[in-house]
Amino acid sequence: MSQERDPSNGTTGAESLVQTFVDAGVDVCFTNPGTSEMHFVAALDTNPQMRCVLGLFEGVVTGAADGYARMKGLPAATLLHLGPGPGNGLANLHNAKKARTPVVNVVGDHATYHRQYDAPLSSDVEGVARPVSGWVKVSESADDVAADGAEAVQAALSPPGQVASLILPADTAWNRTTATADPLPRIAPDPVDESAVGEVAGVLQSGEPTVMLINGPLTADRTSVASRIASHTGARLIMDTFIPRLERGAGRAEVARLPYFGEQAAEVLADARHIVLISTQPPVTFFAYPDKPNWLTPEGCALHTLVERSGDVDGALEALAAAVGADSIEPELLPFERPPLPSASALEPRSLGAVFGHLLPEGAVVVDEGGTCGAGSYFGSRTAPPHDWLILTGGSIGYGPPSAVGAAVACPDRRVVSLQADGAGMYTVQALWTQAREQLDVTTIVLSNRKYAILQIEFDRVGAHNPGPKAMSMLDLGNPDLDWVSLARGMGVPGWRAETVDEFHKALEASLSQSGPSLIEAVLP
Amino acid sequence: MSQERDPSNGTTGAESLVQTFVDAGVDVCFTNPGTSEMHFVAALDTNPQMRCVLGLFEGVVTGAADGYARMKGLPAATLLHLGPGPGNGLANLHNAKKARTPVVNVVGDHATYHRQYDAPLSSDVEGVARPVSGWVKVSESADDVAADGAEAVQAALSPPGQVASLILPADTAWNRTTATADPLPRIAPDPVDESAVGEVAGVLQSGEPTVMLINGPLTADRTSVASRIASHTGARLIMDTFIPRLERGAGRAEVARLPYFGEQAAEVLADARHIVLISTQPPVTFFAYPDKPNWLTPEGCALHTLVERSGDVDGALEALAAAVGADSIEPELLPFERPPLPSASALEPRSLGAVFGHLLPEGAVVVDEGGTCGAGSYFGSRTAPPHDWLILTGGSIGYGPPSAVGAAVACPDRRVVSLQADGAGMYTVQALWTQAREQLDVTTIVLSNRKYAILQIEFDRVGAHNPGPKAMSMLDLGNPDLDWVSLARGMGVPGWRAETVDEFHKALEASLSQSGPSLIEAVLP
Repeated sequence: MSQERDPSNGTTGAESLVQTFVDAGVDVCFTNPGTSEMHFVAALDTNPQMRCVLGLFEGVVTGAADGYARMKGLPAATLLHLGPGPGNGLANLHNAKKARTPVVNVVGDHATYHRQYDAPLSSDVEGVARPVSGWVKVSESADDVAADGAEAVQAALSPPGQVASLILPADTAWNRTTATADPLPRIAPDPVDESAVGEVAGVLQSGEPTVMLINGPLTADRTSVASRIASHTGARLIMDTFIPRLERGAGRAEVARLPYFGEQAAEVLADARHIVLISTQPPVTFFAYPDKPNWLTPEGCALHTLVERSGDVDGALEALAAAVGADSIEPELLPFERPPLPSASALEPRSLGAVFGHLLPEGAVVVDEGGTCGAGSYFGSRTAPPHDWLILTGGSIGYGPPSAVGAAVACPDRRVVSLQADGAGMYTVQALWTQAREQLDVTTIVLSNRKYAILQIEFDRVGAHNPGPKAMSMLDLGNPDLDWVSLARGMGVPGWRAETVDEFHKALEASLSQSGPSLIEAVLP
Repeated sequence: MSQERDPSNGTTGAESLVQTFVDAGVDVCFTNPGTSEMHFVAALDTNPQMRCVLGLFEGVVTGAADGYARMKGLPAATLLHLGPGPGNGLANLHNAKKARTPVVNVVGDHATYHRQYDAPLSSDVEGVARPVSGWVKVSESADDVAADGAEAVQAALSPPGQVASLILPADTAWNRTTATADPLPRIAPDPVDESAVGEVAGVLQSGEPTVMLINGPLTADRTSVASRIASHTGARLIMDTFIPRLERGAGRAEVARLPYFGEQAAEVLADARHIVLISTQPPVTFFAYPDKPNWLTPEGCALHTLVERSGDVDGALEALAAAVGADSIEPELLPFERPPLPSASALEPRSLGAVFGHLLPEGAVVVDEGGTCGAGSYFGSRTAPPHDWLILTGGSIGYGPPSAVGAAVACPDRRVVSLQADGAGMYTVQALWTQAREQLDVTTIVLSNRKYAILQIEFDRVGAHNPGPKAMSMLDLGNPDLDWVSLARGMGVPGWRAETVDEFHKALEASLSQSGPSLIEAVLP
């Protein structure tokens, strides 16, 4: 697999790592390097197969790796600088961890013999990486780097996928080695558990009220099978509120979404006697609240696990379809029907969503960090042409703009539409610059209501009623208002401000018809 | 110390914490809250003595706390949200840790009974906070919160100062309690070690070449004593390259600065037979490089510790001055002499620095994250009116704009001048919004050379010569150029672009004469 090299001369450890990655199919690296990563940067030069994409902040880098792998099915590498690098990247690695996205972090550290000193950038790199990584390893010599890199890729792809962090002391990157490493085999998912299939089939055929709760990437094939099982047996198919990817729109099966707020979710699940868990865990609320339940399984409702996240999800669903006799029935698929343009001129989440669904291109990848204003577009595009929908999985905001970068790098032939709440967008606003540098076809729609609207709702829900002016000032984004068109211009991205349906319609048409990135600030109530 | 309350009714745990902080002198809170912190936000409302300042990203919050405490000598509190909060804030907490700045983090977590579930935001909050905290504690009930808060403040102020992180599960914040806590006594620094003083006095009086190496906040009084000892004994007084704070300019003693690059630092130290460590550790290079030394103490040079960082630094210096007979001599202080305006029109770091020194107001607080372009201003203001200089201590970039926020909140009557390298500034650019909201008197000078210039230098120094186009594209900030005036406008901060000495002179005059924040993009070669 490895390229021919002169074995007597060898390569740097960094070069051996880049070659190992390329051989294993990891050929995109989102980078924010520092001095300790300069040999890795140099190695990028010597290897034409590795594409490197610069982010001006590490949260951009890690969020891009998440969006990339969700669309590509293969991990990207990241290049991060000592403890502060994965620190700045931690929030989006948290989201990737919750999405079970494969990511391969390369984190430079001081040279092995320099770690003993309290230099300014000395830090507990491993300690920083561990809370968000399923796999962490420190390379201790240049001869180990290639093998460690192959192991990192294998670990990242270990079902269902995880964050793997390889820490690379600078001397292991600059020292020379003749070691190489072929890709390691993919670890197979756990095989179908036939007894679980039998148990669940019995439940579904019992006629008792049953919910099939599903998480994980929901491809059209997967939702089609699950939907056939549900409609054939009378069960309800529901997905978790936050899932990594959903193929949806016209020609695809519809999957209901568990509501975010616990009371509403509890109501949806209230009459279930059985909940079948498909690549997910028992439902709980996002947060706990005083005097509200956080465990959402109703009393007297039994939980049954069809397949764990690490299992063969499609295999289990197919076996279940066969067991209940739903394998050959016709799935119910959504028709193709774009919503009409709204007649009213006031721009609010619902009218914006109708314009969104009216124009969304076929094959678009929608990155949804729309927050409280995003639901209008989700509903507005229900029967739009088939498209992908990527959702914030870990609740750590600042996921949208970087994930849009990654999705666009993974899918250069598809339009990426980034539905972005204004408060969340500020966490990783630097991603716009990378969109401009790489001339990515990203349309960013900033849902600009100039407040942390979710917090204004949550403030009341946690029982802290009637916020005073000091508390309110912590929950709103005004004084001064953010001017997103200027922010975008500052990073080389053209933009428009839209305050009416008509302005938004014109801006969205213009954005979708031009290549490269652009941004629309949609001013909402 | 605590305010009177109705003991039968009690307060929320969060209210008890805010009151404890206020009683202990911690009356500023830099916040970026989420749902789990809503009761703390509500408590801010009930306590008029606590000032709260919102940041749109946690790196702003933690960097502001660092800048605040460096100027105030007392910690600010931060308010952060679960694992991703301290994650996003980690880079600037790293800088605070290296500066030994007292900081009190309040990090919300899920309610104690919700932590067991894999909810989207469940995370190892303690694991994230630990690598950058000297003290970490998890409150386990509302009754503990006040006492834990008092302990956190005491820990943060424990000499020489450290980051203290108090993790507050949501139910400990919302449950009611009658517990209160008075401030705990300040922990005293270690007393002067008379035998160390005697040893160092003997070294200084031996006539052998000696360097006094100093770190820690360098007040005018401290540098005056140290400088008198050095000039009286013939020793050289040198400070570490990166120190938290320096009172400098006209009327103050001059302290040489150890060069950043190891070869130059080694040359400075080459003929030393003794290095006296004053609140610092043996000198090492910032990074290790192939075939270059990283340990900077020359062979045959002895190391002597006068006082550790946790010791009574001023007491030790005064004892040493008395021991060598330097306690009553006149210190050598710098004259007041502003540099003339440059005659050439080309704007480069040196001419910019001359204008800077020509105009710097008395009592200014300069936050220096100027990177490779900052030295011109450091030299240009050598004999400017007395001012403070805050330096990036941990090498984790993105320190400048937030630290300027904190310094301005701590010192509302002083002009803050934020000398900001463009690459580093992008990490925490959101701080400009907080400067606008709080109408802080901050003049930001963006040193815009449109590259990671230090990395272009380091690329060569680590032995990775002749970067190709791919490597170079990872080290430059062009394509597209950042437009800082638009970025600032997007956050409510007025700005100017300056491409000549004259344009920069006019812009700096204008900025310094107006209240509130403004920004100058100085375009440099």
